[in-house]
Order: sequence, then C-alpha cells, then structure tokens
Amino acid sequence: MRIRLTLAYDGTDFEGWQVQAGAVRRGGVPPRTVQGVLEDALARLAGGQRVRIVGAGRTDAGVHALGQVASFELPREMAPGALVRALNGLLPADVRALGAATAPADFDARRSATSKLYRYVLDCGPVQLPTARRYAGHLPTGLDQARVQEAAALYLGRHDFASLASSGGSVKTTVRTVTRSDVRFDQATLTYEVEADGFLRKMVRSLVGGLIAVGRGVRSPDDLRAALDARDRRRWPAPAEARGLTLVRVEYDAAKRVLR
Amino acid sequence: MRIRLTLAYDGTDFEGWQVQAGAVRRGGVPPRTVQGVLEDALARLAGGQRVRIVGAGRTDAGVHALGQVASFELPREMAPGALVRALNGLLPADVRALGAATAPADFDARRSATSKLYRYVLDCGPVQLPTARRYAGHLPTGLDQARVQEAAALYLGRHDFASLASSGGSVKTTVRTVTRSDVRFDQATLTYEVEADGFLRKMVRSLVGGLIAVGRGVRSPDDLRAALDARDRRRWPAPAEARGLTLVRVEYDAAKRVLR
Repeated sequence: MRIRLTLAYDGTDFEGWQVQAGAVRRGGVPPRTVQGVLEDALARLAGGQRVRIVGAGRTDAGVHALGQVASFELPREMAPGALVRALNGLLPADVRALGAATAPADFDARRSATSKLYRYVLDCGPVQLPTARRYAGHLPTGLDQARVQEAAALYLGRHDFASLASSGGSVKTTVRTVTRSDVRFDQATLTYEVEADGFLRKMVRSLVGGLIAVGRGVRSPDDLRAALDARDRRRWPAPAEARGLTLVRVEYDAAKRVLR
Repeated sequence: MRIRLTLAYDGTDFEGWQVQAGAVRRGGVPPRTVQGVLEDALARLAGGQRVRIVGAGRTDAGVHALGQVASFELPREMAPGALVRALNGLLPADVRALGAATAPADFDARRSATSKLYRYVLDCGPVQLPTARRYAGHLPTGLDQARVQEAAALYLGRHDFASLASSGGSVKTTVRTVTRSDVRFDQATLTYEVEADGFLRKMVRSLVGGLIAVGRGVRSPDDLRAALDARDRRRWPAPAEARGLTLVRVEYDAAKRVLR
C-alpha cells in the first residue's frame, strides 16, 4: 500500500535527509540521515524487507522539519494510525511521525508537491540565548529593516534562480515561482518565511544570505537584483547557517495530485 | 571587585547548577555543572586563582535559565562589558553571560534576591515535536483547563509548602509567598508562570505536578488543597519532568539589596 507520511525532526544531529550512497565515515559508520533512520524503522515493520522512501524536501545537515512529507510503498497492510504509533515506537526522539494516510499509487512526495513553505530564524542580538542556538542562526549585527524588506520583495514572482543554485545539482530548470517572501522582526530576531513551487539546493539559505548582505549594507537592493539577473553563482552572497532553517509545510493539489 | 552576573543556559547537558563536592562519575570525570564551567572560566580570567560563585537559583539537572544571577568576588579589575565578552569567549555554547554589573560588597545572588520567576512548558498533544523536546515536558493527555486554572489559584498567597519540599533540604522555613501563578493554554501547550519570594527544592516541578493531577482528574482541587495543608510530602503528586522548566528572572530590591 502507498503511504503519505508527515514528519517532524530536529536536524541538529543528522547529516541531512538523504542517504548518501557509498558514503562511509571514519570508523566505518555511515552518516546518520533522516531517510536512513526512517528506512531502518520501516524495514523492521516490514519484516526485514527494505522500504525505499522519497522525501518532499531533501534538507541539508542541521536543517529541521515541522511538516516534511515522505512517500513509500509499505509491503503489508496496516491502518495509518497504527503505522504512526509503531514508527514512533521505533524512531529516535529527534524524528517523529505526525500523521499518515493512504495515497494514490503514483503519489510521489517530491514530484507531486505543488508548493513548500520554509521558515528561517536569525538572532541579531549581541549574544545568542543557548536555548535558541539549535534553531536559529546568529549574526551579532543590526540589520536595516527597511532594506531587508526591500530585498525580500525582490524574490517574489517567477525568476531564474541560477545564481542561487548550489553546484552539483542536476535540475532541468532553475526557474521557480516564489509566492510568499515575508520578513518579520521581533526585537533582535528576524523570521523569514518563503513559499515557492520548488526550491533549488541551498536556495533558502542563499535567499537569506541575500537579505543579510542587503540588511548589513554590504550590497544594495539594486546590486542584489543584478546578481539575481546575472544567473551566476559567483555573484551571490554566501548562504546563511543551516541551523536557522525549518521546512514547515508541503502542499499537494488534491485534484491533480501527481504533476510529473 | 564584587560582580553581579546575569546568565542564560540550556540545562539539557548539565547535571544541574551546583558543583557537587566529592562527586565523581564513572571514569573519574566530575559531573558537568553550570557553576563548575563558570568557575573554570573565571579561574582562567583570574590567572588560575579559584573564584567561588553563588547562584540565585540552584537549578536541577535539565532545568534551563534565561535570567539566572550569580555573584562572586573577581580578584582583578575589569570593566563589566569586557568581563561578559571574555567569559563568552571561554564558556561552552550552552552557557552565555548576558550582562554584568559591579555590586555592593555584601551582595549575594541568592540571599539578596527578593523574588524569582519560573516558567514551565508542557506539551499535551499526542506526539511531541522533536524541536520542542529539550524545552518542554510531554504528557500525551488532555487536561481540563478550568480545573488547572482552579488548582493554580490555590497556590497564590502565603503558604507552608512543606508538602512540596524535596527530602534532603535543610531550609529553616518552608513558608513562601506566591505572587503570581498563571496558566496559559495555546492549542495543546500549557505554559505556567510562577513567581514567589523563594522556592524550595523541586518546588516548581511539584506545583506543576499538582496542576497535572487536578487537570487529569486524578485529584480534585479540594484534595490538592488538603494535601497542601497536610504539610506531608507523601500526599503530594509526583513532580513534573525537569526539561520543561526555565528560571526566567530574579529580582533584587535596589533600596535594600541585601536582606539577610
């Protein structure tokens, strides 16, 4: 049976979502990944049979999720509620299954997604609270709020984001449509929410890197727009730290669930 | 020079505030305590000389702080701002110095305190989000909100809290005056704030244990009141988990800073 599973995780102690084929660390221990611990748990539920899962967002090391979605073929019948409880009994405390549902046979958590929402939290105070350090980046510098807002508005709409594409990606197109790009300031904390029909690797952290460069006055909004238009990675500011980033939600269109 | 230092820490990886004299763990490593790492950092600033510090609240293992206060005698002259920066260069990331000020010679962070504010966060949803698990307790049970409010109101005012006193304490009196006892519900999350002129060991976690027992219907508000009046530890419900507790703020009276 095909399953759509919603997940939350604390990315701090994971080397990202994706199982890295052939990757072996010092001492012969493979990197700990969210996909890996989930596939291990599912294999136990499937009587040792390997279950391959697809995640909507292949989050990097240190990136968190409140609403990641995974799809897979479960080789046995199981009520979705029982699957969630069984998984939470097997998974480590830093990954939790939040909900499960049966899905059409061609449902693919990544390809069927119509939009994703990410949130980035950045502490700009002189000292970061220890209780915030796992879930917020830190930049002990004041940012010009009006300039940050101006930069965030530049991202809205349909653009070729080739300047923000990480090397090593193999995507067909770097054009994406950003439907939300909202910055909120609360005392010394910046919260950025960005929603789009899809994201390139490290794209959100690069978008935040652009906000920071403009907010600090290192770049002007016009410079940033020119860097976006240039479709040249070397012109874009450095990406923000991973720990501030959370995948909040993935949307699927009920009517045309599979887009391929 | 006498210093009043304000601190924040993530208590997850500490065995509490207080250095445990003579305590040695397996492998000969002493328990990691907040007081211990601070005294080590201060000794480095004092050219190897030992600096003994007093903390306003001797928080237990797993308990956090946003506004702990410590007092000590620094055996060299140093501007308070420079002290904060130097400490943050020496301290581990889970403890941060937030501010420092010179203090009267008889200032004692614990004895001079006039009130303390603690916050407890409890997740009551079926599954706890992994990003909340270090800073909130978890009880996958609905609580009756009106009953919890009724129990919280019982704590207000001057009471003998002997029923909530942890064994092994050596306090002169178990009478304390609670000036705030506020419960807030936000979806499945309960946030409790309690302020008093002082707290017994594990008192806040025991107050929360009382709220939980009444909210679940295990005890009636009248039972809880009788258990408080009984001054008998065996009648009080079990304390709540440490990880949900944070010392938020310690107040000092500027006019009569030292109360002794």
